[in-house]
This record gives sequence, structure tokens and C-alpha cells, in this order.
Amino acid sequence: MVENLQVALMRKARASSSFRPRELTNLLWGSERVANERRAAFERVEKTLGTYETAKLPRCYSETSREDLFEQGLEMGKVCLDDMLEYEHEHFVWITPRYNLVNASPFGHKAILFEPAMEHNGTAEQKSKWLPLARSGKILGTYAQTELGHGSFVRGIETTATFDQETDEFVIHSPTISSAKFWPAGLGFSTTHGTVMARLLVGDKDHGPHLFVVQLRSVGDGKRMPGIKMGDIGLKLGYNEADNGFASFNHVRIPRSHMLMAHSQLSRNGTFAEDPLRAKLSYSVMLLVRGKMPGVFAVQLAQALTIATRYSVVRQQGLGPVDALNTETNIIHYKHQHFRLLSLIAKTYAMFFASRACDTQYNKLRKMQCQADHSLLPSVHALTAGLKAYVTSEAVDGAEDCRKLCGGHGYMVISGLPNIIGALAGGATFEGENYVLWQQLGRHLLKQLDRFQDGETIEPQVQYLAEPKDPNTSCMASGEQFLDAGVQLGIYRDRAHRLVVKAHTAIRASGKMPAEAWNEHMMLLIYASRAHMDYFILKSFVDIIAALPDTMSESLGAVLKRVCSLFALSTIVNPRSVDVLSFIETTGTQQPYLTCSQLDTMRSLVNGLLDQLLPEAVALTDAWDFSDASLCSALGMYDGNVYKNIMRWVEQLPINQNAQENGGVQEGWAKWVDPILKRAKL
Amino acid sequence: MVENLQVALMRKARASSSFRPRELTNLLWGSERVANERRAAFERVEKTLGTYETAKLPRCYSETSREDLFEQGLEMGKVCLDDMLEYEHEHFVWITPRYNLVNASPFGHKAILFEPAMEHNGTAEQKSKWLPLARSGKILGTYAQTELGHGSFVRGIETTATFDQETDEFVIHSPTISSAKFWPAGLGFSTTHGTVMARLLVGDKDHGPHLFVVQLRSVGDGKRMPGIKMGDIGLKLGYNEADNGFASFNHVRIPRSHMLMAHSQLSRNGTFAEDPLRAKLSYSVMLLVRGKMPGVFAVQLAQALTIATRYSVVRQQGLGPVDALNTETNIIHYKHQHFRLLSLIAKTYAMFFASRACDTQYNKLRKMQCQADHSLLPSVHALTAGLKAYVTSEAVDGAEDCRKLCGGHGYMVISGLPNIIGALAGGATFEGENYVLWQQLGRHLLKQLDRFQDGETIEPQVQYLAEPKDPNTSCMASGEQFLDAGVQLGIYRDRAHRLVVKAHTAIRASGKMPAEAWNEHMMLLIYASRAHMDYFILKSFVDIIAALPDTMSESLGAVLKRVCSLFALSTIVNPRSVDVLSFIETTGTQQPYLTCSQLDTMRSLVNGLLDQLLPEAVALTDAWDFSDASLCSALGMYDGNVYKNIMRWVEQLPINQNAQENGGVQEGWAKWVDPILKRAKL
Repeated sequence: MVENLQVALMRKARASSSFRPRELTNLLWGSERVANERRAAFERVEKTLGTYETAKLPRCYSETSREDLFEQGLEMGKVCLDDMLEYEHEHFVWITPRYNLVNASPFGHKAILFEPAMEHNGTAEQKSKWLPLARSGKILGTYAQTELGHGSFVRGIETTATFDQETDEFVIHSPTISSAKFWPAGLGFSTTHGTVMARLLVGDKDHGPHLFVVQLRSVGDGKRMPGIKMGDIGLKLGYNEADNGFASFNHVRIPRSHMLMAHSQLSRNGTFAEDPLRAKLSYSVMLLVRGKMPGVFAVQLAQALTIATRYSVVRQQGLGPVDALNTETNIIHYKHQHFRLLSLIAKTYAMFFASRACDTQYNKLRKMQCQADHSLLPSVHALTAGLKAYVTSEAVDGAEDCRKLCGGHGYMVISGLPNIIGALAGGATFEGENYVLWQQLGRHLLKQLDRFQDGETIEPQVQYLAEPKDPNTSCMASGEQFLDAGVQLGIYRDRAHRLVVKAHTAIRASGKMPAEAWNEHMMLLIYASRAHMDYFILKSFVDIIAALPDTMSESLGAVLKRVCSLFALSTIVNPRSVDVLSFIETTGTQQPYLTCSQLDTMRSLVNGLLDQLLPEAVALTDAWDFSDASLCSALGMYDGNVYKNIMRWVEQLPINQNAQENGGVQEGWAKWVDPILKRAKL
Repeated sequence: MVENLQVALMRKARASSSFRPRELTNLLWGSERVANERRAAFERVEKTLGTYETAKLPRCYSETSREDLFEQGLEMGKVCLDDMLEYEHEHFVWITPRYNLVNASPFGHKAILFEPAMEHNGTAEQKSKWLPLARSGKILGTYAQTELGHGSFVRGIETTATFDQETDEFVIHSPTISSAKFWPAGLGFSTTHGTVMARLLVGDKDHGPHLFVVQLRSVGDGKRMPGIKMGDIGLKLGYNEADNGFASFNHVRIPRSHMLMAHSQLSRNGTFAEDPLRAKLSYSVMLLVRGKMPGVFAVQLAQALTIATRYSVVRQQGLGPVDALNTETNIIHYKHQHFRLLSLIAKTYAMFFASRACDTQYNKLRKMQCQADHSLLPSVHALTAGLKAYVTSEAVDGAEDCRKLCGGHGYMVISGLPNIIGALAGGATFEGENYVLWQQLGRHLLKQLDRFQDGETIEPQVQYLAEPKDPNTSCMASGEQFLDAGVQLGIYRDRAHRLVVKAHTAIRASGKMPAEAWNEHMMLLIYASRAHMDYFILKSFVDIIAALPDTMSESLGAVLKRVCSLFALSTIVNPRSVDVLSFIETTGTQQPYLTCSQLDTMRSLVNGLLDQLLPEAVALTDAWDFSDASLCSALGMYDGNVYKNIMRWVEQLPINQNAQENGGVQEGWAKWVDPILKRAKL
């Protein structure tokens, strides 16, 4: 039986690892307790949603109209809220049961944007009024900042909040088509309140964008409040469980007390006052989401990799290097497949561990901010911007490669990969467009270099900028020295140093207006930022390995070290890596930083690591501990029984079930096919 | 009014070009006559389909279930067949009215696979029987090769055709789950006949895969023929207008005469005979489709670019370098946007012109084959494999970047981009998995080098392999010399030379078994193939420019030269290009092929070209002459009125129209939202 061959291949691939995946699972999720609680929460929710029984075709593949997908989102959102309330946990605050960022839930903005916006920007009185309502679910909130015409450039937002001193109210209004709020999750049909970003107008003075709490719908019957036109923006590449919506306001009145006034105040008589840090402090909400995205996106990429890895050990095709079972070759043995899968697994671990380092920084910032110390804000802002841009960009590219690694079958929606790719694709633009974010990090790096040149202190993460370096230094390592983490870090650090200095010099020395100079050298700047993040990510991984718990098995420690080395070296020699020339290029001389023979040495070391890690591939993906229901993939189930799983789901598709009743004939036959055949007969 | 600003910006961007787009249109499509006929055909079909009126939300965005999309495909397919029959043209043989490869039509296999399979593999008698039926539409055919378990490795196909000498029939059978035919367009519900690939079994002898004509459905009522289980494989990333299907055969009997016997014959008494070239000749059908794909995919990428370019000249965001209208900056002016758009436009033209060169080669082959001369087959096979892999890979990456260039709005389905990306994504795997194709080209290149080393002649396209070169030669050009096409070609040729020789040496000198050696050095081989294609593509572009008609305006000629130079240089310095290290790396020495300062020179020349080509951006995309209906994009319409166009379509979404009648409340409110709000009240 063919299915038994696949199952046998999976069992064999799983048995070949040198470590227990559960040990790694516990490291990834924090502890054994957390890992177990997570698993239990997923299982409960999957059972309630009916996705736990994976023999059954999931509803997301059988009911696929816009309306169906949204309804599935409502159900999923409610089930998660209920479970978190009943069992007192937060496993679905940031993600859905499919590991999508929670923005994919119609109620996703509740805990990650609406409540934080209130916490960060509301006065004590406002918080005590709104937060209990929001947290208990008496109101359901969204965060309405982006407009049809403005996203990245928040200062350009057009919605107005005009103070009417007579009635002590604001008039919220959308003066143009492009001023319609556009994109917020849940805005379409399922939230009752929004924190709406609007320009505060008092008399003839424009105080710029501020946040206002606006009731959107009746809590009683869900009807729109007067003067607000709202709806869904239609299907998207992903996140179709959510009703990302639009809202246009026609002179909607709200009390003055609905302006969030922690950092700026408008008094009864129209006097405006603001904290000098207001603009910066309003960042903080964005930072929270941005800071969480790298972790969420790395894990969702790990889902795609789990599917591709499992498929690659059971799919056999062609007569390549022969496997022990002496049949066709398991496709993971083909070098390009092997290289792409393993180097991507390594990158995913690297990005995940970097997201941990980012979490740590963010938590430190919040702790300091509670003491009114905002000094860490610029640094964390830059870090979250860069890491979000890096991970979201690599994650979608990686998942798309996972699809290709699954050949034609990855193109089917039931492979699970199109949904993962579609969800990851959103990350490039939402919560900050990546090319804008790269520039925000770049601006910070240039400022740090300015500070250093002015003799001031600079932050620890960019300390390397303070080490004066000959820009023409070459790497002196050879042979197995390239497996040394210190050598690897040196290569990444020197590259970041060269690129930041190059961009700094070009921009600061330009005779042009600042905006012109900035634009002219934007490519330099963006890739300097990226090189800095490459370094940060490698450093985070190396730091994690240096601090592994004593209780960890030697075998797992050895595997993780190899994974880290593979990340460091394959990033340099992978022909599809971004901006690799800059690993080689120095400035102004003929001598490259790395020579051709050094590169060939690295390639050969990468091949060695690939061979060592091949038996660990399944374990390295099993370790993420994804349930079959969460993967939602006919190709990626734990049992490896792909062909059986595919046909079982395909046969359950409604379009096939319905035709079954009619001898396999679809409605369209009579209308469109028959006339072609018949006309020919005339 | 905001919409007028966008329209004004579009008018201004369009007016800034130095050439008439129509002149380029005629060059692209072949002649003014062809361009006009194309336009007329599109307009007729769009009017019949109801897509011509672009104020109306297209049905593909309002009726989106599996069943709806398939029904739209049936209608589209029939309308195109009707129009081609009535007006006697072939504009929709290869593409749909959305510029998808025609596989997106349920009847798409008819003219590009079913009929060619018959032409290439049928005897004269078989052709005279089947071709008139197929061409007139009395039967509707599909080409059923791929199975659930086998795609790339055709020799592994499991479906059996067992000869029953007693009845003079074949018994077509699917012995395993994985042997089900899987993927063929139209197989699900809408074709009546298939050319089915199956292993010919005679007695205990397995003669390998052959083609058999199998009736799948009743021509009268569309019912499945007995013993065949068929259906749809469900939603895919793209091509959802087609019913890509599966078919499982349970001892289905067909007459012996249904085996296509041009290149092999089975006689009444079971005697088997075959042409020694049979395996190779059966390639020819695949070659036809593969050879056409680069052109189709380049044009579909041009659609994505048209949308992104139009959006980029009317979208304003932020205060960058100031535009003459003195408002926010048009995003095309931001350097990263500018660089990505223009370099991608250049690449698209390059790939399109290369597809022309490929067409020429294929036509030459077919002409020779009609004289029974198959000597060009290996060369054209290698070329189509490489170009298909190259273009399909670049096209989907490029379209995905177009989506990012449109910010968040590119994520909406109504931007048109998700559908284009989804369609292009299929190209990586269908009609030959790209990594397999790269190896096929690689195998050919190594063989050519073998021939050269054995003193035999080699084909013109790889003549450079015959020019003995010092592998350590460096490029000696400087300054504006890099704008010279000869210098550019030299860089690409030397790189291809180095890489092919490097792969050849590694594989031929390996002490391992051939399959092991091949696998060990597969990455080298794949990127050698890719470097060869980079060279071929640049050369095709340079050749086209050298042969531009005398009647062409100087201004257009100058623009095309710049576009070509931009392609040549930006491919080297774009941080996101594939395998750029190999432009620099020589073998075994310290001296790189290009120095850092030469690279900086190229970067500066690229910046100059970008500035020169910025005013031509809209004209360079208008020149493709895409109708608004074919783009099907709220972001990319000719008028540039994006915000108006978006809101107009969004308001027409059924989910919004239906809620309208009920105060904006969706059905799901009562079931899922209200209980959350109510529970809180308890």
C-alpha cells in the first residue's frame, strides 16, 4: 500500500534525530508548563471549532465565500475569547488558532490595540471608565488610524475633530473620499467602539492628530450610529476572517471627554496644552504590536516549514541519490531542497530568538516608562522597526519558498501554504510599511554615529560604531575558524559598521537639502539598517546558545550550535540572500573583505552542516509542537500520509459532493459546455 | 476635490514622456495591425462578459465561492472560443481576457495541449479522426499526465494501460491512490476526452509511459463514463476559473486504436515497436507550452507593473523631495520605490524580448522537425527549460514586489495584484518544476562543454564556452564604458563561462557515482544555468535594439537603450538580485572580477539612468496597452482616480449591500457578537 510507504518514511525520518523534540519545545515556549498549557488550550479550542478531527475537510476549505470566511472569523474570535475567560490564559491574545496574528480575528484589536491605546493615552479617569468595559467585553473596540489616503505618514491624516465650545463636543468628520478610515480590523461589522485618530481643530488652529473614542454601533442591536457609513473592504490576500473595514464620518458629535488626554489636554474653554513628548509617546502603542510581530511571524513561518519538511521526507520523485528503502529518492535528499529547507529552518530559529531579545527590550522600556523614564524609547522604536521589517520580509519569502518546495501540491489551498503565505504577506505593509521602517532604524543609526562623533555616549547595541575600524580591513579567518561564533559575529559586525559609516558619510557630507540627500542615498541607508539587523539577529542567537540551561541535553545543545552556524554561513553564501555583495565589498580599495577561496571554504562548511542536520530536520520542526488542526494542511500532517490525506479532503469538497448526486455533472454544463459541443454539430 | 488631484497627477506623469506609447505598443505586439486587432478582440469579449464597464464591481470580486469562480471560467472560456471562431483570430489561444495563461480556462488545454499532443504523437489516421473533432469543438480535450504521486519524474507514472489481446483493447487503471491523475485543467467537470499518460503493459513487459485517448464524459449529457471517478481539486492560489481535476480509473476499456502510435506501435498480436527517438519526441508537446510561457508570464508581470506604476505616480505620502504641485511627495520619487519600479520595468522588457528570441528558436525547430530533422531538439529543450524557469521565477517575485510597492492597498483583492500574483505563482511548478528545469539546462551546458573538449562543434548560443579564457581575468572597464552594451555583455558572458566551467569541473572530476556527484554540486550547476540565462536574456535585448526598424523614432530608440542598460547594470547592483556574488568571484585568486569602486561606478550610472527614465515610467507601462477590464484593478485604472475607484467598488460588495438593508448589521452579529456583549452584562 502506498500510504504505508509514506507513513514508514515519516517514521524513519522522525526516528533519525539525535535529540528529543519536546526538550526543544519547552525551550521555545518558555517552560514545560507553558508548553503543556498551550497544547491544552489549542486542543480545547480546536474541539469546540470542530477542526480537531482532521479527517474532516476543514470548513475554511469548503465554505469559502467572503461571507462564509467572515462568519468563521466571528466564531473563532468568540471561541478564543470564551476559552481565555474560562481558563484564564492569554494564548490567543496575539494569535489565532491558526497562528495568524490576531488581527485576523474580528475582535483582534481589542486587547492588542484598543486597550493599549487607552492605557497609553488615557487619563486615570478615562482608563477607569473605559478599560473595565473593554476588558470584560461590554464593548468591543478597534483602533482606527489608517485612512484610504494615509497610512505611513500619520501627520497627513485628514479626519477632523473640530471642537465646538458651545456644546463642549467634538465633531468628527471625514472631509474627503481619501479621509475615510480604511483597514482597521473589526471596523466593518463587529466592533462597537473605536479609538479614532483625527486632527484636533480648535478655532482656526490645527493641533495635529489625536485619539478620540467614538461609538460606532449600538451595543444593543449592532446598528450603526447615526452619521457613520461603514462596511467591509472585501477579500484580501489573507486575514479574511476579519472584517477589515472602512468608516466615513458625517459630522458625528462626541463629548469632549472622549479625547484621550494623558499627553495633551483641551479644557472646557478651548485651551490646549501638551506634553513635549506627546508625539513620541503616542508611538508606544505601535511599538507593542511591532515588537510582537517578529515572534508571531517567525512562528507562522515555522508552520510553513513544518509542512514543507514533512512533505519533503515522504515525497519521492526520481532516481537521485538512493535512499535506504531503495525506492525513488526522498526529495529532501536533493541538494537544492536540502539547502533551502535547512537554511530556512536555521533562519527561522534565528529570527525567533531575536524576537525574544526584542521582547526583553520592550519590557524593559515599559518598566522604565512606568517610572516616567522614556529614555529607552528611541532605541526600542528603532529595534522594533528594524526587526519587524526584517522578519516580515523574510517570513513571506520563506513561506513562498516552502510552497515551491512542495511542488505543485503546495499550490493547492488545502496544502495550507496559500493561507500562510497570504497572512504573512500582510506583514510587509501593516503596522508600518517596511521600507519606511528601515529608514526609521537608519535614522536612529545615523544619529548614534553623530553622537559618537560628538563625543557622546551611544547605546550598547550599536557599540560597534564606536570601535574605530580601518574600512579596508579584510577577514583573516580560514578553514574551520569560520565555524567559530566569534569569527562569524566579526564578519557581520564589520559589515554593519562599513555600511552604516558609508551611508552616514554620504548623507552628512552631501551638499544637498536634507530631504534630497536622504532620498539620494536611501538605498545605502536601507541596506545599512538591514546589515545592522543581520548582526543583531545573529548576536541574539549566539547569546541564547551561550545561556542555554545547564539541564539541557548535550545533543540538543550541539544541534542548536550547528543551526546557528548554518544561519551565519548560509546567509552569506546562499545565492538568494539579500545584499550579499556588502559582505565582500570594502570601500575604495581593490581588496575584498572576503576572498573567493574564503567563500568556497564557507560553502564547504555549509555542506558539512547540512549533512549533519539532515537527520534532525523533522525533529527541528516537530519541536514547534504545531497541532495538525493548526497547520490545516493535507501535506503537513504529523502522520506523513500525504496522498491519503489529500484525496480524503478533496473528495469532501462540496463542489464534488454536489456533482456526485448528478453523475458528476455541474450546473454550468448545460449553460456553457453543451452549447459548444452542440454548435459544432450544426 | 481629492480625486481631481490624482487625475491631474496622472495626466502630468503621462505627459512627461519623450515618446508615443503607441509606437512601442506596435513594436511589442508585432505591428500596428496586430495591436489594433488585439484591442478590438479584447473589447468585444469584455463587452460580452460585462467587464468593460469598469465602474461596476467585477463579478470575480463579488461572487467568490469555489462554484462561482468556476462558473465564471466556463463563461469566459466559451465567450473566447466563440469570438475566435466568429472573428477568426487566435488572441485567446494562449491567454485569457485577464492575461492569465489559458490553463486558467476550463477549456484551456484544448488548443495548447490536447490538439498538439495529437499532432505530435498521432498517426496520420488518428489525426484525421481526432483533430477535426477537437478543433471544431465536437469534443473538448484535456491532457492528463501528472498524477498525485508523480509530476516531474514522468517515468514514475503509475497509471497502467494493459493490453488485452483477446478483445484488442487496453484496460486503463489506477492501481494506487497516488496514481490518480491530478491537476489537469478541465478534468474536473468540463472536458469530454483526455490524452492520458499511462504505462503500456503487454504481457509481463512494461514499455513505459505512452499516451492514450480516453473518453471521460458523455458528449451528450456530460455524465462521467463508467469506471472513472473524477472531480475538482478545490481552490488554488490562482487559476480558480479552471476545474483542475483528478481522475481515478477502474479498469476502463478503450480500443487499441486509441493509443497514439506515431512514434511507437502495438500491433494486433501484441508486438511492440518504437522509434529510438520516441522519448525525446514526446518532449515536443511540453516544449510548446514551456516555450510560450516566458512571453505570457512577462506580459502578466507587466500588468502588475502597470498597476504599481500608475499607483506610484498618484499616491502621495509624506514630505520627501518636493514635487512641482507642491503637495506631499508622489511615492515614485522615493528612491527605493523609483529603483524597484524602473529596474523591474527594465527586467520585464528584457524577459519579453528574450521570449521572442525563444519563439524564433522553437519555430525553427518545428520547421526542421517537419523535415524529420530533430537535431535542434536538445538545444531548444534546454533553452525553453531555462527561460521558463527564469521568467516564471522572476515574474512572481516581481509581481509580489509590485504589491508591496502599492503599500497596504495592494493587499486588497480589488487591487488586482493578488490574482496576478496567484496566477504567476503557479509557473514555478507547472509544466516542469523550475529546479528540475534548471538542471535540464545544466545537463545540456555540461554536455556542450564535453563536446567542445572532445573537439566537436557546439551550438552557437554557448559559443562562449569555446573561447578559452583565463578564469582569473578581471573586468577592465571604467566610467561610462559600463553603459556600453559590449562591455555589459562581456561581464555577463564571462560570468556564465566561469560558472559553467566551475560546475563542469566539479562534477566531471568528482570521484563519486554520477548521481552522487550531480547532487553534491547541484547548487553550482543550477546557478551556472541561471548565469547562462542572464546572458541569453541580455543578449536578446541587445540584439533587438541593434535591429530596431529604421522607421522608429529616435526618442523611443534612446529610451529602449537606456532600459536595456538599466537592466544590465541594475541586475548587478540590486541588493535583491539573485546570485550576484558570482559577478565578482573569480576562481582561486584574491583578485575579484569587479572591484568595489567599479561597483560604485555602476551604482552611480544606475542612478543616472533612473533619473532619465523617471518621466518615461507611465509611458513604458501604457505601451503594453492593457485595457482597464483586463487589469481588473481599482488601483491601476488608466485615469489614475484611485480613491474614487476603490470606494466605488467597495461600496458595491454584496456583503456591504446586504448589510445596507439592515442598518449595517450582519447575520453573524446575533450569533457571535451579541453573546459576548451580553455575557458581560450578567
